[in-house]
Amino acid sequence: MVISTSRRSRIEPFHAMDVLAEANRLRQQGVDVISMAVGQPSGSAPAAVREAASAALIRGQIGYTDALGIAVLRRAIAAHYAEHYGVEVAPARVVVTTGSSAAFNLAFLAMFDVGDRVAITSPGYPAYRNILAALGLEAVEIELGEEGYLTAELLEQAHRAAPLAGVLFASPANPTGAVIPEAELGRILERTRALGIAAISDEIYHRLAYAAPDVTALVFGEDAVVINSFSKYYCMTGWRIGWMVVPEELVRPIERLQQSLYISAPELSQVAACEAFGATAELEAIKDSYRQSRVMLLRRLPELGFRIAAPMDGAFYAYCDVSAHTNDSMEFARRMIAEAHVAATPGHDFDVANGNRFMRFSYAGSVREIETAMQRLADWLR
Amino acid sequence: MVISTSRRSRIEPFHAMDVLAEANRLRQQGVDVISMAVGQPSGSAPAAVREAASAALIRGQIGYTDALGIAVLRRAIAAHYAEHYGVEVAPARVVVTTGSSAAFNLAFLAMFDVGDRVAITSPGYPAYRNILAALGLEAVEIELGEEGYLTAELLEQAHRAAPLAGVLFASPANPTGAVIPEAELGRILERTRALGIAAISDEIYHRLAYAAPDVTALVFGEDAVVINSFSKYYCMTGWRIGWMVVPEELVRPIERLQQSLYISAPELSQVAACEAFGATAELEAIKDSYRQSRVMLLRRLPELGFRIAAPMDGAFYAYCDVSAHTNDSMEFARRMIAEAHVAATPGHDFDVANGNRFMRFSYAGSVREIETAMQRLADWLR
Repeated sequence: MVISTSRRSRIEPFHAMDVLAEANRLRQQGVDVISMAVGQPSGSAPAAVREAASAALIRGQIGYTDALGIAVLRRAIAAHYAEHYGVEVAPARVVVTTGSSAAFNLAFLAMFDVGDRVAITSPGYPAYRNILAALGLEAVEIELGEEGYLTAELLEQAHRAAPLAGVLFASPANPTGAVIPEAELGRILERTRALGIAAISDEIYHRLAYAAPDVTALVFGEDAVVINSFSKYYCMTGWRIGWMVVPEELVRPIERLQQSLYISAPELSQVAACEAFGATAELEAIKDSYRQSRVMLLRRLPELGFRIAAPMDGAFYAYCDVSAHTNDSMEFARRMIAEAHVAATPGHDFDVANGNRFMRFSYAGSVREIETAMQRLADWLR
Repeated sequence: MVISTSRRSRIEPFHAMDVLAEANRLRQQGVDVISMAVGQPSGSAPAAVREAASAALIRGQIGYTDALGIAVLRRAIAAHYAEHYGVEVAPARVVVTTGSSAAFNLAFLAMFDVGDRVAITSPGYPAYRNILAALGLEAVEIELGEEGYLTAELLEQAHRAAPLAGVLFASPANPTGAVIPEAELGRILERTRALGIAAISDEIYHRLAYAAPDVTALVFGEDAVVINSFSKYYCMTGWRIGWMVVPEELVRPIERLQQSLYISAPELSQVAACEAFGATAELEAIKDSYRQSRVMLLRRLPELGFRIAAPMDGAFYAYCDVSAHTNDSMEFARRMIAEAHVAATPGHDFDVANGNRFMRFSYAGSVREIETAMQRLADWLR
């Protein structure tokens, strides 16, 4: 029988993941590849997190949990909003998810129907565009200006061209690290309310800003959907554990969708994540290493002919214009991994129109690794 | 701002999960509830599985993996097909997923577009229907006859009424435990090929059959999508780890979808699952306890006025006609949990049309628990 594939499966690959697979393949052959491709801390999850998981393994059964997550974790997340942001969040509005990946999927499914238009930014995280396409939604890409972040004005322009059902923005952003200033964030949310556009705020890079304190969209009201995760600041990528804070009206629809699409997030990761908020000392030490790498890259990358395209105010990415070296960043990335043994992500992931001129370097690895990678690139480019 | 929810979020709840949440709520109040609601083994994952997870926690980083899964697990799964079924499967055709939940979602997204008709059985696992609805697909419910399983003839009838893009069937089945006989399975697959219908075989209850050896759809060719999981026989529900074996043509589309929708399955669960196939002695002892409970329930349930609706040849479910007691199994389940402190799942989950007359009892718990539950029901019904 001829196997037919769906039209919606013809989404773009997530090139960073393809680069990761290629790096893993080379490593299995004994090649010492340094990966700056994936936004993944090289550090382990905090000791207390790993100890909680170990203890749970000894206690015994790892089972399904309530679809919305275990009560103690939902309370811990709610308490984090009070402590870190000074915002009151009821634990009942917290949904524990299988990474932020599941949170995006659940938010889109709960709020949008086939054909709905949802704005995202370009450049931006490629999975947004791909998940939207897989779900039959139209991704409306708002091209960002020099400042590198969404503004209320850009949003309103896009909505005037054709009405939007929703908008998703990230601050700090992937791939640029750009941060939306507090006043602008307020204006964006005020505008979504006025225009009847559902707002989704991706806050996965919170606690990884280097210039200004974090501001959650929840400061401006309870109607935004906020998505976050233990993957980045908390160093728990492979645990697949994240969360969302949603308006009350969305809790039950999302619970129903979660029951059938995910059952629940992995229990071991839920139990372990309860300890993450108490590990600040350990995590701030890791953040200090990002700070060091950031300072180094701000100097080294331009020296190597990689022009930094945005202020790098947060996250752990440098998004660079590489047109001094190539007009085909995909091919350039392939040669870089094969010849210099340094993996980075071609800009095509983040910007279908102009990505051929850009690359993203993640500095979530150790300072030493990143220093070595820069040295390798210098030797290779010479 | 008024929060608007999507039409597709108005799926049915997964009532078994609602019952689980209610049981957890009562337990937190100190009520000793016995749950026969969810298909979840009360036993822990095998010792070697838990030890592998513990060792990985000490080794350090738990990270993203290749989207298709770690190579060693894909090879172990492929080897399982050679050992258990005598079928050659290339590791490249194995996709590691975040439970079978993710596998269903990926299979549907990779093969079907909005509006496509996909046949499932009634009664059947409710998440099939709910995921299909969330993805904009039309679930065509094929009502099963007395034998309790899909036949080639029932499939062809449904296809003649209006063309099907796909069919999904499970053997052993949830909620009945019915097993499709080998010859009938061959006929079904031959018919899907002749009619150009994509076949998805849910084999999550394999190794839990009590009357006949397991037959995988892969015996009849490489064109069926086979879905399985470590949740049931391997006692790893809360680990959220499963797999699919897919035709070569589907590997890359599914990899692309997985990259954006899931990134990868939880690494700790992947590492741990590698040990599951070697834990047969431990797992067969657990299966023996299901065997005991099954024999007990075949006697006790009818004594209590619960008529067993299908042969119970596999899985760990008894699907019962409860019309001797009620015409509203949802209300009956609510009273049963509140008054007898026994949780079971109303038939509405599995059969929207006739579920009001049925309930599903899971016997995945310990023999002693199930004996106690039966005693409580006897006292309550008296």
